[in-house]
Formats: sequence, structure tokens, C-alpha cells
Amino acid sequence: MAVYTEVADDELATFISLYNVGDLLSYKGIAEGVENTNYLVQTTEGSYILTLYEKRVDPDELPFFLGLMDHLAFQGIPCPITLKQTSGPTLGQLAGRPAALITFLEGMWVRRPTNHHCGELGRSTASLHLAGRSFAGLRQNTLSHMSWRPLFEQCRDHADSVHDGLADEIDQELTDLEGFWPAELPTGIIHADLFPDNVFFLNNSLSGIIDFYFACTDILAYDIAICLNAWCFETDGSFNITKARAFLVAYNKARKLEQAEYDALPLLARGASMRFLLTRLYDWVNTPADALVVPKDPIEYLRKLRFHRKVQSVSEYGIDRE
Amino acid sequence: MAVYTEVADDELATFISLYNVGDLLSYKGIAEGVENTNYLVQTTEGSYILTLYEKRVDPDELPFFLGLMDHLAFQGIPCPITLKQTSGPTLGQLAGRPAALITFLEGMWVRRPTNHHCGELGRSTASLHLAGRSFAGLRQNTLSHMSWRPLFEQCRDHADSVHDGLADEIDQELTDLEGFWPAELPTGIIHADLFPDNVFFLNNSLSGIIDFYFACTDILAYDIAICLNAWCFETDGSFNITKARAFLVAYNKARKLEQAEYDALPLLARGASMRFLLTRLYDWVNTPADALVVPKDPIEYLRKLRFHRKVQSVSEYGIDRE
Repeated sequence: MAVYTEVADDELATFISLYNVGDLLSYKGIAEGVENTNYLVQTTEGSYILTLYEKRVDPDELPFFLGLMDHLAFQGIPCPITLKQTSGPTLGQLAGRPAALITFLEGMWVRRPTNHHCGELGRSTASLHLAGRSFAGLRQNTLSHMSWRPLFEQCRDHADSVHDGLADEIDQELTDLEGFWPAELPTGIIHADLFPDNVFFLNNSLSGIIDFYFACTDILAYDIAICLNAWCFETDGSFNITKARAFLVAYNKARKLEQAEYDALPLLARGASMRFLLTRLYDWVNTPADALVVPKDPIEYLRKLRFHRKVQSVSEYGIDRE
Repeated sequence: MAVYTEVADDELATFISLYNVGDLLSYKGIAEGVENTNYLVQTTEGSYILTLYEKRVDPDELPFFLGLMDHLAFQGIPCPITLKQTSGPTLGQLAGRPAALITFLEGMWVRRPTNHHCGELGRSTASLHLAGRSFAGLRQNTLSHMSWRPLFEQCRDHADSVHDGLADEIDQELTDLEGFWPAELPTGIIHADLFPDNVFFLNNSLSGIIDFYFACTDILAYDIAICLNAWCFETDGSFNITKARAFLVAYNKARKLEQAEYDALPLLARGASMRFLLTRLYDWVNTPADALVVPKDPIEYLRKLRFHRKVQSVSEYGIDRE
């Protein structure tokens, strides 16, 4: 939770006047999002989200992210779209930061996802992958499997202080992942961060997908692996095969998975675990004690990694081998 | 900025269903308020603020605060009112905390108050004091001048580490304040925390006063002193006599100040400085480094205290002695 950048009322009123959204009525900094600062803005026309892009986002990449959201929304994916200033641009400047005014999506993220929610997510993830096919933009995954070892080297020395033997375990796992990472699977636009707090539901229907700032071009089934990790483990660490099945069946109905994608899932899920284990480990050892954001526990993802390492076939994700 | 208590979507939906406010559409934790947790809730009927009362608020005092807001709103003061559940009560329970759903006020707090804003505030502060006269509730000021020495004793040992000589300076000042604190001035309901972030403006008119959780029965002119401190000093530490005059003239027009109140202002302003100096000092030495809230600088209020100590007459606040 964080508001990194304070916006003055008069500066915001001037900024809002650049858009065709009526007059400013109120704005509140919202305690969501760890990368950027977000305000919920109300005008005489409705509610909007104002995002100020902080240092961790490369301004050169913003046209990709904003263009992607527009494209996906046009294809029917319930994601925010960026408003244009009356003079044309979608990206502005406010309080010394690149800033965008985006549409407000109704709905709540679910704290305790059910099988039903996982099915909804599976269907929408497939739709997102299909809708991404016609998007012209390309963005390399800056947190792809190629980035993991360099990231590990930056926090290797602290790993064992977080968990005994962690450095060796990661090292060995990275060797496996580097050796067996699949090269021939279908690729395309992936969200790459479809955690429950980025997905809204209203009356049990998926009503919104937000936070596309990790979206990139990568293996489509890798996005599935990220979802299985984020949605199908229970708080006690056990894997809920029924939720995984609900996700995969719904996904497959909207976009038929190839056999090679099924076969690669355990390895992709190990990779997806490694990605979040490493970024969390990095944040864990690099977040100052007085930071506004409390770092997330990396060990949660070590446990998920170990689970997937033991998986023998996709049937352990609730799907019968075809 | 802080959301101390997370509320689950399904629990909130159940809570909202106890009110006659339509169906829940969204809710966002807002990064305002340092004492309580606030969510901006949107339903099919409109926007509301959900407040969860954290440990620093005594649940037994909530009926006073909520009753006061209702009373003042009924008298035309633009403050939030508490919604009643369809079964009657105004105070509920959510996520293990006392919780209230209150009306949402449009408007923004001004980061750079002008003379005009100070005048608006003066008028509304007088109106609030007048409207409070007919309120039956009483609440002793838990941060009155009687509380200052005990509070000081709790952080005295750390005072000099914050500012050299601070312990002796506070000690001497407390002796003065204890000796000369006025006993005969008009008392009544005061807000006691009318800082700019608790006052909203819309189109340059005061549109809302929030956060009544320090409100109490005390010397009315002490509330004025708090406002002069919070609104009339510039960021360079200088006192803006024009703003003070704007406040006092507008106040006096709505509620005529007695000569004794004018005369007591310098001393009351020293007291108001002491109150915030001490609570900030206490927070400064007691806030853990990993807290969600960054403590405010106590020395800002030491400087204000020193300014008022040198004031010879109320003319230095922009008002001619009558």
C-alpha cells in the first residue's frame, strides 16, 4: 500500500481540465498497487483512476502498456482504457511524474477465490491471450527465465540468511530450468501478474483485469502457470486440484491447449515459482525497514516451487492426459 | 497514510447489506487518516466512507463522535453523517473492529491555503461552535492542558536527543501555561484538529469538515488557536498575519469574540503549539521504524510556540485591539 507521490489539489484541477471529464469533485490516494501511485478521482462525469508512474516503470514502455490496454478493451477484455486529453495525448505529466487518467472498473478482488472464480479467470485469461494476437506491440519479458540467474546473483549472499540452504537450492533449480526451458511453445501477449488483487469480480462474474505493467510477449502457458500459483494454493500451502482443474478446463474451452503446453506445465510452474521467489527475495533483502511497502514472503514461493518439482504429470493439476 | 485493517470482499458485502444503500460495486482502502482505517465504498446508490476504528479510539466514545456529527450536520455544518443499519444501529462490527458507514463529502483539502480559504474556515469554525451549543453530549478533552505534563514525562528523557535543550524549554513553558491558563473563557464543542487535511473545499467554498475524533468540550478560542497554527504559518516558518486576520474577522462576524478571548489568544496559541509539539514528540520517539505512518516533525511546533511566546498583543494576529 502506498502513495509515493502527493498531488496538490490545484495541480490536479489543472491536469483534469485537460480532459473532457467534467469538473473535479474529489480525489483520494488509494492504498493499492506497490509499483505506482494511484488516486481515485471523482468528477461531475464519474469515477476515474489517476496513475502516477514511479521510478520502477520505464517511461519508454508506457505507450506499450497503455496501447495494449486499449487494444484488449476494444476486443472485449474488461480492462481499463486510458483517456485522451482534448489536445490528443494519452500520457500527461503531473507532480513530476508521467501520469495517465484511466477508466474506473467496478468490482472487488476476491480474498478467498472459489472454484467458480478460478473458472472465470481461466476463461478470461484465454480470451486475453486470443485478443493479444492482433496487437502489434512487442515487449520482451524483463523478468523472463533469462533474467533469473542475474537477479539471483544480486541477492545470493543473503539467501541463506532468509532460509537455510536456499542459495544452493535456487542454484540447482536454475540449472534445471535453464537446461529444460521449452523453446517451441506458443507465445504471445501475457499479463504476467494475474494475482487475485489484479482481477475484479462483480456478482461472481469477472468484471475487471488491471495492472498491465508486467505485460509482455512470452510463452502463453507461462501465464497459466503464474495463475495456478497465485490462485490454486490454499493458505495452508496445499495445492487445490479442483481449482486448477476449473481454471484449465475453462481456459481450454476458450483457447485449446496443445499437448506440448500441457506437458510443459510442471516446468513452467517451477519457473513461475522461481520468478516470484527471486523478486520477493530481492525485495526482502533490499527493502529498507522504513519503507512504505511491506515486502512479501519469498518462502511461500519456495514451497510452491518444491510442489511443482514433485509433479510427475499434468494429471496432478486436475487434467487427464489426452 | 494507512490501511491498518484489511476487509475481505465477502465480509464487506454482508456488512453493506445491513444498510439501505444498494449493492456493493467497489471499495478501495484510502491512504488518508492516521488513526483509523478508511475505505471509499461505491454502491449502486453512491459513494460512502467506511471507517474501521482502530485501537487509539475508545469504542465507548464513538456514540459521542457520531452523535455530534449528526447534530452538526442537522444544524447545517457540512460534516459527514453516519448511516443507520435497517435494523437501527449506527455502529457495526467488521473485521474485528467497530465500524461505521458515513456519507461521502465532495471536495478537496487545499495544500496551499489562501487568505480566502482562511476566511472560509473562520466563518465555518464559528458556525461549528454555535451549532455545538445545542448538542447535549459532553466529552472532556483528553489532550487538554491538564494532560500535557504527564505526556511530557513519558518522553522527557528523549526530548534533548530530538532537539538540544528541548526538555528544559518544554518544562519552563509548561510551568507558564499551568500558571496562566485561562479559566473563565466561553467553552463548548470544539473540533480540536482543524488541520487543512480535515477541511474540504469545492470551487473555493468550504464543502466539508471531517475527522471529529478529537472533538470535545473545551475553550472555544482554543480551537481558533489550533487553526491559526495549522493554517497561518508559511512553509518557511513565518506567520502570515493577513491569513490570521482573514480567519479572525470572518469568525468574529459569525460569532462575536469577547475581549477576554482576544486577549487570551497568544497564550492559547502557545498551548495549542504545546499540544501538537508534545503529541508529535511522543510519536517521534515511540514510532517504530517499520510503522505504516511516518511521524510528523515536532520541531515545527516548537518554532510556532516560540513565535507566540514573543507576541505582545492580539494586533500581531492582524486584529486591532478594540
